[in-house]
Amino acid sequence: MVPTFEVIGKTVRKRDGAEKATGRTRYLHDLELPRLAHGRILRARFPHARIVRIDTTRARALPGVLAVLTGEDVEPRPFGFARDQTALKRGKVRCVRDEVAAVAAETRATAEAALELIHVEYAELPAVFDPRAALAPGAPLVHEELGTNAHPLRYRFSHGDVDRAFAEAAAVVEDTYRLPFVTQACLGTMAAIADWDASGGLTMWTTTQVPFLYQRDLADALGLTGGRVRVLQPPVGGNFGRGLDLYPIDVIAALLARRAGRPVRVEFDRVEEFVACPGREPCTIRLRTAADRDGRLLARDCHVTIDNGAYTSWGSTTPYVMLSTVAGLYRVPSVRLDTTIVYTNNPYSGSMRGYGNPESTFAVESQMDDLAERLGLPPLELRRRNASQPGDVNPQGFVLTSFAMTECLDAAAEEIGRDAPPLRPGWRRGVGYAGMFHVGGGARIYRSDGCGAIVKLDDFGTVTLLTGATEIGQGSETVLAMIVAETLGVPLERVDVVNSDTRVRPWDVGTHASRTTFVAGNAARLAAEKLRAELLALAAAQLEEPAASLDLRAGWVSVARDPQRRLAYDAVARTGHFKGGGRVLVAEAFYDPPTAMLDKDLHGNVSAAYTSAVQAALVDVDPETGRVEVRRIASAHDVGRALNPGAAEGQVHGGIHMGLGYALTERLVVEDGQILTQSFMDYALLRADDMPDIVVRLIESVDAEGPFGAKGLGESGVIPVAAAVANAIKDAIGLRFTELPITPARVRAALEARRT
Amino acid sequence: MVPTFEVIGKTVRKRDGAEKATGRTRYLHDLELPRLAHGRILRARFPHARIVRIDTTRARALPGVLAVLTGEDVEPRPFGFARDQTALKRGKVRCVRDEVAAVAAETRATAEAALELIHVEYAELPAVFDPRAALAPGAPLVHEELGTNAHPLRYRFSHGDVDRAFAEAAAVVEDTYRLPFVTQACLGTMAAIADWDASGGLTMWTTTQVPFLYQRDLADALGLTGGRVRVLQPPVGGNFGRGLDLYPIDVIAALLARRAGRPVRVEFDRVEEFVACPGREPCTIRLRTAADRDGRLLARDCHVTIDNGAYTSWGSTTPYVMLSTVAGLYRVPSVRLDTTIVYTNNPYSGSMRGYGNPESTFAVESQMDDLAERLGLPPLELRRRNASQPGDVNPQGFVLTSFAMTECLDAAAEEIGRDAPPLRPGWRRGVGYAGMFHVGGGARIYRSDGCGAIVKLDDFGTVTLLTGATEIGQGSETVLAMIVAETLGVPLERVDVVNSDTRVRPWDVGTHASRTTFVAGNAARLAAEKLRAELLALAAAQLEEPAASLDLRAGWVSVARDPQRRLAYDAVARTGHFKGGGRVLVAEAFYDPPTAMLDKDLHGNVSAAYTSAVQAALVDVDPETGRVEVRRIASAHDVGRALNPGAAEGQVHGGIHMGLGYALTERLVVEDGQILTQSFMDYALLRADDMPDIVVRLIESVDAEGPFGAKGLGESGVIPVAAAVANAIKDAIGLRFTELPITPARVRAALEARRT
Repeated sequence: MVPTFEVIGKTVRKRDGAEKATGRTRYLHDLELPRLAHGRILRARFPHARIVRIDTTRARALPGVLAVLTGEDVEPRPFGFARDQTALKRGKVRCVRDEVAAVAAETRATAEAALELIHVEYAELPAVFDPRAALAPGAPLVHEELGTNAHPLRYRFSHGDVDRAFAEAAAVVEDTYRLPFVTQACLGTMAAIADWDASGGLTMWTTTQVPFLYQRDLADALGLTGGRVRVLQPPVGGNFGRGLDLYPIDVIAALLARRAGRPVRVEFDRVEEFVACPGREPCTIRLRTAADRDGRLLARDCHVTIDNGAYTSWGSTTPYVMLSTVAGLYRVPSVRLDTTIVYTNNPYSGSMRGYGNPESTFAVESQMDDLAERLGLPPLELRRRNASQPGDVNPQGFVLTSFAMTECLDAAAEEIGRDAPPLRPGWRRGVGYAGMFHVGGGARIYRSDGCGAIVKLDDFGTVTLLTGATEIGQGSETVLAMIVAETLGVPLERVDVVNSDTRVRPWDVGTHASRTTFVAGNAARLAAEKLRAELLALAAAQLEEPAASLDLRAGWVSVARDPQRRLAYDAVARTGHFKGGGRVLVAEAFYDPPTAMLDKDLHGNVSAAYTSAVQAALVDVDPETGRVEVRRIASAHDVGRALNPGAAEGQVHGGIHMGLGYALTERLVVEDGQILTQSFMDYALLRADDMPDIVVRLIESVDAEGPFGAKGLGESGVIPVAAAVANAIKDAIGLRFTELPITPARVRAALEARRT
Repeated sequence: MVPTFEVIGKTVRKRDGAEKATGRTRYLHDLELPRLAHGRILRARFPHARIVRIDTTRARALPGVLAVLTGEDVEPRPFGFARDQTALKRGKVRCVRDEVAAVAAETRATAEAALELIHVEYAELPAVFDPRAALAPGAPLVHEELGTNAHPLRYRFSHGDVDRAFAEAAAVVEDTYRLPFVTQACLGTMAAIADWDASGGLTMWTTTQVPFLYQRDLADALGLTGGRVRVLQPPVGGNFGRGLDLYPIDVIAALLARRAGRPVRVEFDRVEEFVACPGREPCTIRLRTAADRDGRLLARDCHVTIDNGAYTSWGSTTPYVMLSTVAGLYRVPSVRLDTTIVYTNNPYSGSMRGYGNPESTFAVESQMDDLAERLGLPPLELRRRNASQPGDVNPQGFVLTSFAMTECLDAAAEEIGRDAPPLRPGWRRGVGYAGMFHVGGGARIYRSDGCGAIVKLDDFGTVTLLTGATEIGQGSETVLAMIVAETLGVPLERVDVVNSDTRVRPWDVGTHASRTTFVAGNAARLAAEKLRAELLALAAAQLEEPAASLDLRAGWVSVARDPQRRLAYDAVARTGHFKGGGRVLVAEAFYDPPTAMLDKDLHGNVSAAYTSAVQAALVDVDPETGRVEVRRIASAHDVGRALNPGAAEGQVHGGIHMGLGYALTERLVVEDGQILTQSFMDYALLRADDMPDIVVRLIESVDAEGPFGAKGLGESGVIPVAAAVANAIKDAIGLRFTELPITPARVRAALEARRT
C-alpha cells in the first residue's frame, strides 16, 4: 500500500524565502547592538616572513580606537583541525592570510584607518608554493618544528589484491587529474560578533554551521570551558561548508571584545572574503582503473596529493570522502588509495560542499569514459554493468540498503535524449555522463552523529520544534517543519522551528555530509511521535474513547468511526492544561544513526544510508573560440523520498551552478602565495544567464531508516557536474581535459596542440 | 534531621545585577532593528467628548511619516479585562488617556511633529469624576450602551451571621478609609516593538509580565490566532504589575507596524508613563469590626467603592484580594463584603504589587489598633490573640498549612524594640504594627496556575533551564537557577536560564500573586529531578554501580562508599552521547499547584500555601511642620524557606520603599479628569536618602508543598507598611489618619483641627 501524506511530498516554499526575496531577512550583518564596536584584521604582506617588530603606537593613539592586538598581546592557543595555527600570529607569518594584528574601533572607518597606522617590519623568508617543491630536500620549512613540510595527515587504504588485478586486467587506464583552488563565494561574507557579559560569559553571533563543536573549539581557543560560550546563528548568506571549523575571525572578534570591553563585530569585506575564506583544496589525483574484457571493474589505485597551505583545516581531510568514491562509485572489488599532503606557504583550504567528492568524482568518472572507449563500450553501458545495487557491501564495508543507481542512469539518459536544442553552425556537440556516490544517512565523522529535538504543542495548536540542526539556506527549517507537521497531523503553517541558539537547542553535530534531513529529520520525527502519543492520550480521555480508535489529521482528533466527534488540537491542549493538575504538551528525542566510525584502516559503515546520482550534460563547443556552452544538465537523484520536491530540485539546481563553475570558470588564482582573484570581476562565478536548461529527476527508493524514507541530497547536485561536462566535451571534440576549470583558453590551446 | 544544602539558603547575587549595575543590560528600550520606525500616540484633549472629526492630512504629508492611524482606520476589536476598550477610540473619548490617533515615522522627532499636525475636532461632553456623582440619576454616562455608570463587576461575600455578631459584640469599630491613585513609577517606561513577518506572523518585544496570556489577548485584539504571535521579553526597568493586561500601546504598535510594513517601536516618555500607565486603583473602604470582651474578633463587614475610570483593567478586580484580607487577616468567624464599582471619566487603573492588599490591609490593620484601644488591649496582644495558626481553614475555605504569623509578630516586636535612635527635641515618637495575609503558593485566578520547565545538561556540564516564568527584576532567574543547581547538584554558575521567548518556553500563567518561586520553582525542581534520574542512570551504567549507590554533588557523580571513583557531569554526558545510539540529557515538567478557583460565592482554596508578615514602624513626627519621619521598619516574613536570603531581603526592601511612598508621599493627582502629576518633580517617589533603617527577619516555616519549603514573598513587603506607619503616627500624636498619603499638610491640618 502506498502511504498517503498530507504534507510530505508536496512542494512548499522555503519558509525563509519570502523574507529573503523581499529583503527583510535580518542577517548577522544587519545586527546592531548597543555600544557595538567594529573590528578589522591586518594580514601578512608576505607569504613567508619573520615578524621583526610590530609598532602599534600610532594606531593606539588614533581617536576612536578601542583595542589593538597583536600576537604578543594574547596567549597563543592553537586551534583548528590540526591545532597548527593561532588567531594572531607570533614570530613569523606563513601565508598572506596570516593575521598579524587586529583593531576594534568606534567605527569601521576608524578601524580601517588604524590598520594603516600599524607598522610591521618583516624579514622575508624563502617560501614554497608547490607541494613537490616543498618536499624537496632543503626546501624552506613552513613549520620548522615539524622538520618537514610533509603533513602528518595521511590516508591509506587497501582492499583486495590490487596489483594482481592490474596485472590481469584486460584494460587499464591511468591519468592524473588536477583540481584548482576554488572558493564558496558566499554572498554573505564571513562575520562574527562577540559580546562578553559581566560574569565572563561569551555570546557569539557567527556564520558557523557546527554550533556545538564551535562552542567547544572557540572556548578552548580562549581558555574557557564550553559552557561559557553561547552561540547564536542569525541567517547567513550562504555557507557551503565554510562554517565547519573554527577560524581566526571568530577568535579575534572575541579577543577584541574582551579587550575593548564592548561587543565587537568583525565582518569580511569582499576582498577579505576572497583572501581569507577557506575554500576547496587544490589537489592532484593520480588514478588507475583496471577492468576485465566485459567491462567489469577489477581495481582502482589512487594517489592524492593535496596542497595543504600553511595551516590545516578540513581541506586536507577530504581523502576520507575521495576514498568513498574511489572504492564506492560502481562495484570495484580491489582498491588502493594513498595520499601526500604537504604544507606550503599558500592559503589553506577548508571544507566545501561535496567535500572531496567533486574532485574524486571528476577523476573516477573521466576515467570511466576513457575506460569505455578503451573497451569499445558505450559509456552508459559500462556504468550500467558496474552499478552498485541494494544489498552490496563495498570494500570499505559500506552497506547499501536503498540504492537506485541503475534507475538514476536510466532517468538521466532519458532526460538528456529529449528534444535537443538546435546546434549552431560550426559548433560541436557532445553528451557526457557522470554518476556519484555519497553518504545519504549522516556520516559518523565524530563519535556522535546525532541530533536532538524538542517539540511542544501550545494552547493555540501551534507546534514549536527546537532542533539542534543548523539552517544555512538549504531549507532544513522547512523540511523539518514538514516532518513534524506530517507526524503530528497539523497544518504546516502551524509549525515553528527554533534553531539558532545553543543555549536553547539540544545538541547536534552540525550541518555537513548532507545529514540534516536524515538525522535531524529523524530526531524531529521521533519527538513528534512521542508528542503525538501524549496528545492522543489526552484526547482519548477527553473524548472517552480508546486512543486506538482516534484519527489525527489537519489539527483535529476525531473518532474514526464517528468523525463528527472531534476536537481541535488547541482545544485538547487547553482542556488538558487549564484545570487543576493540568499539563502541557512537550516531548524530546535524540537520534543517532546506527553507524560506525571508520576504523584506522578506513573500514566501517559510516552512514545509515548511501545515495547516488547521475548527471548527463549536453554541451556545445565552439572550436573557433574554445567556448564551451552547456545546454542542458539532466540530473537524476536517489533521494529516498522527496519530502519537499521543489526544495530538493532547488538544492540540485544550486549544486549544478556550483559544479558548472568548478568545471568551466572558477579558480582562485594564487601566484607566489598571493591571491590574485579578489573580486567578482576576477573570480568568474556563473551568473543566472549562464545557466543551462536543468532537468531534475528525483528517484524515490524509500529508505527504511530515513524519515518517511528520505535520504540526504545537499551535496549530490554539485558532485558529478565537472566530470559529466568533461565527458561531454570529450564526446564533442575528442579531447580529454584532466584539469579544471576547462576555460576557453585551455580548450583553444588543446585544439591548437592537436592541430600541430 | 535538618537538610543541608549546597546552594539553597546562601545569599547569591542576582544574575542580572552586575550587568544592570554597570549599565550594560540591554533593555527593550535599547533594542535596534533594521528599518525600525518610531510610533507615537495622540491622546484625548478632554476627559469626555465626542470626536467630531480627525484631520490627518497634514500629518500624512509630512516627510518621514510612514503611517497614520485613527479609530476609523482600523477594525474596532475590544480588549482588556472587560473588553470595554479599543486601541484607537472611535466616536468619543472617555478619559484623557484615550488614544485618538497614532503615527509611525522614520524618527521619533518626526512622529512627534506629525502628532502636532493632526487636528481633532471635539464636542465636549459633561463628565463625571466621582463614583458617587457618577451613580446619581441623570449623571453623564461613560458608556451609554450600559445605561448606567454602575460597573457590572460586583464582589459579594458572606460567611456566618455577621449582623448578629455585631449586635452581640462587646466592641465595634467602624471607619472609612480612602486610598489614592498611585502609579508604579517604573524607571523603564512602557514600550513595545511590533514586527510582522512576510507570512503575517507578529513578533512583539514587550514589557508584559504575562507573556502567554498576552499572546492570546493581543492576537485576539488583532484578529489573529494566538499561534501567530511570538512574544519576546527583554529586560524591563520595573513592572510591579503594570504588565498584567493588554493595553493600547501594544495593539497600536502592532497596527502601526502592519500599516507601515516595518517594525515599529512605541515607547512612553516620562509624561506619558504618568498619564497612561495603569496604576493602583483609587478606592474607599468602609469597614466595621466586631470583637468580644477578650478581644477575639467576631466579625467584619466591609464595603469597597472603586473608581473604575473609563475602562476596566485589573484595578477593579482587587476586591478579590481585599476580601482575602478582610476574611483572612487574623481569625474572624463571620465576614461580609460588598463592592460598588463605578465608571467615571478618570483614567483607569491596572494591577500593582500587592493588588488590593495594601489597600485592605491599611483598613483592617488601622482598625485593629483602634479596636485594641477600644478594648484597652496592647495592639500586639490583640493581634496575638487573633493570629491565624497552621491548620486553620478560613471563611473563604483557605487551608493554612505552614503559617508563622505568631512568630512574625514576635520577631517584628523584638526588632523594633532594639536600641532606638535618639529623638529630636520637639518631635513625637510612636511605634505601630501591622500584619498581612497573602497567598504564598500561587493563586488560581485562571483555570491553570501552572508553569512548565525544560532542563538540559550539555556536554560541558552546563545546565539550561527553559522556564515559562517571567523575570521582571524580582530575581526569579537567580532563584530558579538555584533550585535547579541544588536539585541536580551542580555549581550555580553552571545553570543558565532562558525565559524570554514564548516560542521557546513552555507555558506559564505569568508573574503575579507572588507565585514564581513557588510555582515556577516547583516546575524547575521537577524537571531537574527527572534529569537527575537520567543522569544517575547514565552514570550508573558507566561506573557499573547501581544508581542508589551514587552521590551527586558539585558537578560530580561519585560512588558513595568509594568517592575516588567519580565522574564529572560533563564526562557522563559526553560518554553517554558520543557513541553509537547515544543520547543527550533533556527533561521537562509542568507544575500546577493542588488548588481550586474561587467559586461564585468566592469560596475555594486558591493557593497551595498562605503566608503572613508583620511590620513594625518606628516613626517620629514633628508637630510643628507635620513632617513624619520613619526611623525604622522591622519586617518579619514567613517565607517558608529563604532560598536566596539576600534577594528575599531585597524584595522586602523594595516593598517597603513602595509602601512608604504609598503611606506618606505618593499620589497621582487627578483633577477634573486631568492628571496633574506628570513628572518626578510632582510625583513624590521616595529617594534612597528618604529610606529608614530596615530590619528584615525571614521566618522559615518550611512549607511542605513549596520548592525546598519556600513560599512566595514578592508582594508582602509592600502590604502592611502604610498601616504600620499610620498606627505609629497614631501612637506618636494620637491622631488616626484614614486617608493616604499622610502628607505633612494633612498631619498639620489634623493637629490644627484638634487644637481648635
